[in-house]
Amino acid sequence: MAEEEVIDSSDSDRHARELAHARYVTFDGPHHLESGGELPSVTVAFETYGQLNPAGDNAVLVCHAISGDSHVARHDATDDPGWWDIAIGPGKAIDTDRYFVICPNILGGCRGTTGPNSYNPKTGSAYGPDFPMITTGDIINVQKQLVDHLGIDRLLAVVGGSLGGHMALAWAIHYPHMMAGTAAIATSPRLTSQALAFDVVGRNAILHDPHYNEGRYYEQEPGPLVGLAIARMLGHITYLSRESMKQKFDADRLSPRDVATQFETRFSVGSYLAHQGDRFGQRFDPNSYITLSMAMDLFDLGATHDDLVKAFEPAVCRWLVVSFTSDWLFPDFQSRQIVDALLANNSAVSYCNVESSCGHDAFLLPNELDSYGTMIAGFLENLNGGPGTVEASDDGEGRARKPTSIFHDPGRLDYESIAELIPPGASVLDLGCGTGGLLSLLKQRGHQRIMGIELDEHAAVACVRHGLDVLQSDLNQGLSSFSDGQFDFVVLSQTLQTVIDVRRVVNEMLRVGRRGIVSFPNLGYHKLRRQLAEEGRAPLVAVGGGTRWHDTQNVRFLTIADFDEFCREEGIQIHQHVALDTEAGRTVDDDPNLNADMAIVVLSK
Amino acid sequence: MAEEEVIDSSDSDRHARELAHARYVTFDGPHHLESGGELPSVTVAFETYGQLNPAGDNAVLVCHAISGDSHVARHDATDDPGWWDIAIGPGKAIDTDRYFVICPNILGGCRGTTGPNSYNPKTGSAYGPDFPMITTGDIINVQKQLVDHLGIDRLLAVVGGSLGGHMALAWAIHYPHMMAGTAAIATSPRLTSQALAFDVVGRNAILHDPHYNEGRYYEQEPGPLVGLAIARMLGHITYLSRESMKQKFDADRLSPRDVATQFETRFSVGSYLAHQGDRFGQRFDPNSYITLSMAMDLFDLGATHDDLVKAFEPAVCRWLVVSFTSDWLFPDFQSRQIVDALLANNSAVSYCNVESSCGHDAFLLPNELDSYGTMIAGFLENLNGGPGTVEASDDGEGRARKPTSIFHDPGRLDYESIAELIPPGASVLDLGCGTGGLLSLLKQRGHQRIMGIELDEHAAVACVRHGLDVLQSDLNQGLSSFSDGQFDFVVLSQTLQTVIDVRRVVNEMLRVGRRGIVSFPNLGYHKLRRQLAEEGRAPLVAVGGGTRWHDTQNVRFLTIADFDEFCREEGIQIHQHVALDTEAGRTVDDDPNLNADMAIVVLSK
Repeated sequence: MAEEEVIDSSDSDRHARELAHARYVTFDGPHHLESGGELPSVTVAFETYGQLNPAGDNAVLVCHAISGDSHVARHDATDDPGWWDIAIGPGKAIDTDRYFVICPNILGGCRGTTGPNSYNPKTGSAYGPDFPMITTGDIINVQKQLVDHLGIDRLLAVVGGSLGGHMALAWAIHYPHMMAGTAAIATSPRLTSQALAFDVVGRNAILHDPHYNEGRYYEQEPGPLVGLAIARMLGHITYLSRESMKQKFDADRLSPRDVATQFETRFSVGSYLAHQGDRFGQRFDPNSYITLSMAMDLFDLGATHDDLVKAFEPAVCRWLVVSFTSDWLFPDFQSRQIVDALLANNSAVSYCNVESSCGHDAFLLPNELDSYGTMIAGFLENLNGGPGTVEASDDGEGRARKPTSIFHDPGRLDYESIAELIPPGASVLDLGCGTGGLLSLLKQRGHQRIMGIELDEHAAVACVRHGLDVLQSDLNQGLSSFSDGQFDFVVLSQTLQTVIDVRRVVNEMLRVGRRGIVSFPNLGYHKLRRQLAEEGRAPLVAVGGGTRWHDTQNVRFLTIADFDEFCREEGIQIHQHVALDTEAGRTVDDDPNLNADMAIVVLSK
Repeated sequence: MAEEEVIDSSDSDRHARELAHARYVTFDGPHHLESGGELPSVTVAFETYGQLNPAGDNAVLVCHAISGDSHVARHDATDDPGWWDIAIGPGKAIDTDRYFVICPNILGGCRGTTGPNSYNPKTGSAYGPDFPMITTGDIINVQKQLVDHLGIDRLLAVVGGSLGGHMALAWAIHYPHMMAGTAAIATSPRLTSQALAFDVVGRNAILHDPHYNEGRYYEQEPGPLVGLAIARMLGHITYLSRESMKQKFDADRLSPRDVATQFETRFSVGSYLAHQGDRFGQRFDPNSYITLSMAMDLFDLGATHDDLVKAFEPAVCRWLVVSFTSDWLFPDFQSRQIVDALLANNSAVSYCNVESSCGHDAFLLPNELDSYGTMIAGFLENLNGGPGTVEASDDGEGRARKPTSIFHDPGRLDYESIAELIPPGASVLDLGCGTGGLLSLLKQRGHQRIMGIELDEHAAVACVRHGLDVLQSDLNQGLSSFSDGQFDFVVLSQTLQTVIDVRRVVNEMLRVGRRGIVSFPNLGYHKLRRQLAEEGRAPLVAVGGGTRWHDTQNVRFLTIADFDEFCREEGIQIHQHVALDTEAGRTVDDDPNLNADMAIVVLSK
């Protein structure tokens, strides 16, 4: 139906070099749009990297952000770098030696795919303001036609950041069986009102530029480049963070870079913004900016958690959701809203809020690539079955589950004792899962629906790398993402004593899990009692491991008897008690509160 | 020299009503400006409230922000509200029954004081672009002339927020003997690069409005109102917070308010911005916006801590510095930079970072008035000697220093034992000072240079209300604001056990204080030993006070012997040990580690 053509891009000389590798395909229409409008035909500019494998199951669709294009990476050493060169290429996070990467310029764009600056057969000139309003749904419908055209029945994954993340979300909802996994980076279920406000101001600047001419500026010089520059300057402020702007501009605030511009250059940040504003006018079409920013502003999966749960209901893929701590345009809590809705639908999802000072741009920069790139690589690798389970000891970075400071590291004795308490096939949520020691053991034992929660970013990254679903989150902020009885078992292994709000966390775990398993060090252990009673020393102090009363991570100290009383008071039922002497490596039956250094308790409420 | 005139404001009809109470005074020049330019004469519009007392020492100068004017509050019940009506008036935070309040429109403004829209005698028309570049220094020099004109030798205080805060800082530096106190609200030593960037974009929008006409637009209609509106829309985004925009606009995102405007109104936030942008054009002069935003951008007390310490060196007044947690235009860390510099100069300063979702606008809104208004009132009341010391029991809000969960509340036994250890006249810093119980006791005993650090906002507010200097801050973040040996004594009373990073805090206190006094509950107390040894219960559990192992605020548990060992290891010298049995209300000499429930230790390093 659609034939690929070679389009001579020399009429768009300034783009010729960058788009040297683009291919073009035209899909005849009419294309009915969600707004009610239609387009008679749509041309798509796209680039591909790597090879589609014989099974046809290694294709990764990459969706670009508002100002991106099809040139996502260089095709060879002499090529210009693409906009995500750091993440895509041979041996990189999205490894083009393994995956077939497709990146199309999006509908409404201005870099080869049909958009406002394209030829309108009805009028014989550019669409301009006659280009219909489009939505993210329209954009992905065109991408779907491209994927079909390329003969791909099912993508390995759809990956996108920012506006591209909106597309990734829409793909998983509208074409749920078209991908094994979706990676949504630095994105949101809809813009915050703050982010939307910046777009409004940017559009107002373009629309009221006297050269805008109601969108029919293609035949005149100049177009509404001042308005576009104002919008772009604003955009750049929102892509950076306060911290990254400080790093860039504070040192030489009054020493502007030498740029030829009509805009104010008294301050270094001003010269930067002027440069970015001017440069954008050389490569981007103001009508495209209006069209795509409006598509972004209209994207709206819902205002409430319930809305989002409903919106994500059709999705069946695995998920990786990544946010960045300093991203204030697509702030982390919005990624967490996506994750919470996915969890409510019992989807398989990993989430990490990557520590970064780079703001929204972080996903395009090398600074945090070790985290987000590693997770993308691990995520892709573990789709379609993946390479299988890893050993818990294979953490690599020495970031195993933190040993308790009171006792000898219980290590696998603890894990194995807990695993023994869980019937085959049960679903398990592990609170404070570290790098996934217990989860890996459970995976080896054939448990399918297992997940961890871990605060430490590096430990969470290690989980994703190993194909274990993890929610990077603070236990003290509760388990509100999970619904009642969502897991057969919720495990709190060697973590209770580091939790500030014990009551909330324990009650939450017994809400989310039909059974809870808690293991904790027993302050009633005879050696510890003696330290206080006879030596007058805090029990913690004299015990191995090198941590002390003043620097231990433990902030709660309890005996087995204390915990039993707590359970009685909270109306928690104790089903099973396992008491361990970890030093001797055996279970304890006689007076556990005196003779055991660790307790494992199975609970419910 | 300067005569007050009655200026007929009917030529500026739309302002006539609001400025009904303004008085005008003209100071003949030439006025030499910091930029090297000059103004032949300067007229100041100002309003006053309340009466100057016979001693002439109750005058408060209020400095307005970029778009404010002299009408800071209503003059009577029929008057229009002023821009800070909630804080100024009879019985309000700045009580006009007690204080004589002066609020002038600032130089460069457009509401009666000389600015770009004023008559330029050299040309016979408005200054426009010929209005010279002005600085905050120029602005306060004119204010100083007004204060002199009013016959005031020394102000009680200068109070200002945002750009007005810049003026307050400049006053304290340039006219250090002109005020007893300075209250700097939601301000900064200079703009962040991010805030500066927004100003640059706003100015670019005005300067490139085709109606700007190089600033000579007064004779034409319309002026550069689109550019000014764009700048104002941007400003409004930065005055609000993400959270407050959510509250205002998320619920009815697609239901714009009905406003007549040329700007985009598809979204509710768009209609709000359009309205604000349009309305600003009706009352503000674009050239004033450029002039004043540039004055704000050029305000720069220094980039580094050392710069700021030097900048604030001349200041001798007392200080109140207030920031708001959600203010991202003048973020809290910038207020803290001011405070740190003042502390380095050994200035008397209180600081509080008020919890708020209202963003930069918080200081103009009623939401957090209970905090910032109460502090301003308490600060003013305690200047010039103030009403004297309050009783520690006079906390009012039941927010006394938190009792330890292990022991009977030591109350004044602890305080008095500590106070006894401190020689008369010594300077004291109290870490975790609560509502100021110990500090009040020390004040009663005649100590002059005393200060507290407290994390809880309400407790910190209570301190300021009582005239006690307090730094609202987390001890775990260290004492880096203070220099070596800055205090004779640093006290950590009943707080050690709630500190996570004990090693850092103790070493820091002994860096800042020539002596340290630490009091803490002793886990070695015989009753506690027995609880663990004989009953097998965490020592905490069985003791009164209602707090338990799982919800106590205490996170560190130590015996006197543990602390002694810690001191040996850290090279800390113990000068004095006081062991208390708080239940019996007496000191303990015999085996304190067994018989005392609390220890007080005097240390140095």
